[in-house]
Amino acid sequence: MSKNKKLALYPGTFDPITNGHLDVIQRAVNLFDRVIVAITTNSSKAPLFSVNERLEMIENASNGLDNVEVESFQGLLMDYAVKKNATAIIRGLRAVSDFEYEFQMALVNRKLANGIATVFLMPHEKYTYLNSTIVREVAKFDGDVSSFVTEYVQDKLKSKFN
Amino acid sequence: MSKNKKLALYPGTFDPITNGHLDVIQRAVNLFDRVIVAITTNSSKAPLFSVNERLEMIENASNGLDNVEVESFQGLLMDYAVKKNATAIIRGLRAVSDFEYEFQMALVNRKLANGIATVFLMPHEKYTYLNSTIVREVAKFDGDVSSFVTEYVQDKLKSKFN
Amino acid sequence: MSKNKKLALYPGTFDPITNGHLDVIQRAVNLFDRVIVAITTNSSKAPLFSVNERLEMIENASNGLDNVEVESFQGLLMDYAVKKNATAIIRGLRAVSDFEYEFQMALVNRKLANGIATVFLMPHEKYTYLNSTIVREVAKFDGDVSSFVTEYVQDKLKSKFN
Amino acid sequence: MSKNKKLALYPGTFDPITNGHLDVIQRAVNLFDRVIVAITTNSSKAPLFSVNERLEMIENASNGLDNVEVESFQGLLMDYAVKKNATAIIRGLRAVSDFEYEFQMALVNRKLANGIATVFLMPHEKYTYLNSTIVREVAKFDGDVSSFVTEYVQDKLKSKFN
Amino acid sequence: MSKNKKLALYPGTFDPITNGHLDVIQRAVNLFDRVIVAITTNSSKAPLFSVNERLEMIENASNGLDNVEVESFQGLLMDYAVKKNATAIIRGLRAVSDFEYEFQMALVNRKLANGIATVFLMPHEKYTYLNSTIVREVAKFDGDVSSFVTEYVQDKLKSKFN
Amino acid sequence: MSKNKKLALYPGTFDPITNGHLDVIQRAVNLFDRVIVAITTNSSKAPLFSVNERLEMIENASNGLDNVEVESFQGLLMDYAVKKNATAIIRGLRAVSDFEYEFQMALVNRKLANGIATVFLMPHEKYTYLNSTIVREVAKFDGDVSSFVTEYVQDKLKSKFN
Repeated sequence: MSKNKKLALYPGTFDPITNGHLDVIQRAVNLFDRVIVAITTNSSKAPLFSVNERLEMIENASNGLDNVEVESFQGLLMDYAVKKNATAIIRGLRAVSDFEYEFQMALVNRKLANGIATVFLMPHEKYTYLNSTIVREVAKFDGDVSSFVTEYVQDKLKSKFN
Repeated sequence: MSKNKKLALYPGTFDPITNGHLDVIQRAVNLFDRVIVAITTNSSKAPLFSVNERLEMIENASNGLDNVEVESFQGLLMDYAVKKNATAIIRGLRAVSDFEYEFQMALVNRKLANGIATVFLMPHEKYTYLNSTIVREVAKFDGDVSSFVTEYVQDKLKSKFN
Repeated sequence: MSKNKKLALYPGTFDPITNGHLDVIQRAVNLFDRVIVAITTNSSKAPLFSVNERLEMIENASNGLDNVEVESFQGLLMDYAVKKNATAIIRGLRAVSDFEYEFQMALVNRKLANGIATVFLMPHEKYTYLNSTIVREVAKFDGDVSSFVTEYVQDKLKSKFN
Repeated sequence: MSKNKKLALYPGTFDPITNGHLDVIQRAVNLFDRVIVAITTNSSKAPLFSVNERLEMIENASNGLDNVEVESFQGLLMDYAVKKNATAIIRGLRAVSDFEYEFQMALVNRKLANGIATVFLMPHEKYTYLNSTIVREVAKFDGDVSSFVTEYVQDKLKSKFN
Repeated sequence: MSKNKKLALYPGTFDPITNGHLDVIQRAVNLFDRVIVAITTNSSKAPLFSVNERLEMIENASNGLDNVEVESFQGLLMDYAVKKNATAIIRGLRAVSDFEYEFQMALVNRKLANGIATVFLMPHEKYTYLNSTIVREVAKFDGDVSSFVTEYVQDKLKSKFN
Repeated sequence: MSKNKKLALYPGTFDPITNGHLDVIQRAVNLFDRVIVAITTNSSKAPLFSVNERLEMIENASNGLDNVEVESFQGLLMDYAVKKNATAIIRGLRAVSDFEYEFQMALVNRKLANGIATVFLMPHEKYTYLNSTIVREVAKFDGDVSSFVTEYVQDKLKSKFN
């Protein structure tokens, strides 16, 4: 890979990946030469899906997309980003409450690695309401999540809650 | 009851019911033929009061109001709302931070049961600051909650923290 | 009309009516016995369309809906609401910036006529971004507004800007 | 220029360009192959500086930056973006109030030209407070704007207000 | 007056002074040795009341309060604050929309005169909704403003709109 | 100390104290005769540092500042404030998300002790992003926190995480 190729990281918990995440990934692919979907593994909360399950679901969902890779990482995002020689961090912005937290993280991350910009993208407005927490909550009570996640993820959710 | 009668659900944790909740209930009674105050029982957080205690406090507080019933439910709100043949879900809006979460839930709920509208009402501005968490926190340290909850709830809080 | 019938007013400038407004009207019709779309005529800003043109466009757009009427009014909304014996004022809420202004107006209106509640409804998320100002701006430069307003309004916008 | 080169537009009024704008431009240059700073000329408000003066100030300020061009445009941003074959629209985000308006515009722009993404970047936190309106206001009363704009712009402001 | 006495400025348009403003002034008096209510005269909008009328209404309203003075000023607030040897600028915060603008101004003002802090106070929650624009709007259509402003201001509003 | 001396409390968890907290303390010292930094000990979350460690770090950091004391307290803030005969409670405001919570607490605190005002101050914009949670998170993964906290606190963080 030439050193001019631009790599963006899209970090997140992805527990599980939603159609809103996928929409952001599709946008990112148009803007950068390579996109790595990067699963954070140091959340304080116990995830529903293991890192391997999450990785598998993202790979399945992003299957048709060129130049998308999936990885997991430990430790500080910016240490990982520097190691990967990333140009940018991608974050989805949906709502004001996202905005402040994301802003704060972006400012800290700039402090930690000034050369790597945080780039905010908007998912389609039909995904404004969507996050992984809501998907888990609806699936837990056997609600219909077919417009929120891929068929593959639907199956995984069903297995998990039965 | 004729099928044209309009039923609204007012769901919440009500741990315990506050004067702000009561203000919303009084408003809802003017707008709908029947109002069911619906206690959610699947919160991940351990409540201070049992479902029965919460039910009793709401019944006591809403005693003088016509056409108000109190129930508890399990599972997805929208499954319960469909079963009850509800026309609307009532939610109180006090602050911007309420707003985004409520919005998100309303959009998901519309997805799950499109015919049932979420209707937002505002409690009186003197209850802007009020929520059950703050009531519990103040009562825990024996602070004065007489302008936040009914006398009956005050007594229950005192018993709980002694 | 019996005195138990519930009337809601949906006030606004409607310059012009958008698909987002229509979505709110459709929701309101399910909740109330009658809905009056009420055009405010005392805006400080010069509107693009005259009151009669706006009235005509709303009537055309809400043609298939039962129990919807269109009127214009002058002076304070709450004086008009009291005169019409309204039970509620309907407002659409799309975003945090809407929220604070609407809240402030609702609190003042409650002060002016305590018995009439302001009821907030959410348009479909596909109309989150939509308001009359943006429609006028896009139409002015001959952009495509077909997913924002009815065909009838599209024609009126074209005539206005040619 | 090969068709794979990625062009981003950075539209705005730039009346005048501030150090916050410059910070965004420097970030954008790292992300895209070419950046066009695009002056909008159809604002309803009368600007302090003419389009030519604004263009000159931006050219002076972005002088040392490779691959940055300055242009002005009329009509809809997305018509101009399509004509230029742009990959992305750049917008700076500083505060929640920015956020909602920018979000709304990004959603409308996506509707008008789906293939062109809006990319949000954050200026350095030391420019959080900064916008052109405040610069004009401070300069008008002969306040010190040396930490807000370049020396060249300071001189232009002084000439304008004397 | 000894040089240790602490002076706070409370700047604003006060067109007219409301009960919310008065509530902030009463709070400020407890915190500082002297408070100057400072009428800004360089608003771009044409005020309803002249500077003298506004000054007279504030003096009448703050009559019983010790250590409160009323003045008007031209030019930059911070130049005026430095000249008066002020320790602090007082601003009332009621809502999120206030917050961002006020924050921005506070940051710019700190840049212009670092030693003078902006101090934010909250009016009573019963004034959350209240501002001068709403008072003028309600009074213009002969609505009841008796819970928003003093009797003296009510009379002035009546004279102005007849 | 004369009874006219004005005392402000600056309550918080300070787990650990950051440069943003220090900036607020420095501002507060200019406004009040005495400032007590007051460590709350009834947080539901387990802190990283003990009350004594936090007290020691604050004393070290505020060493050069006149009239600053450090204490810890249990129970309701307002009971403690009344006991200390405080004139004001100091809170730092950085972002909209701070704002709503702080507002709510300030309204409740006013209810509990009406004579004691909550005074909001802004830390320098370079600390906009900064809070103790982020400091702990970055330090945990051995990231560089030298621009966030004092050298003394850096050492304590290092000991804690090794």
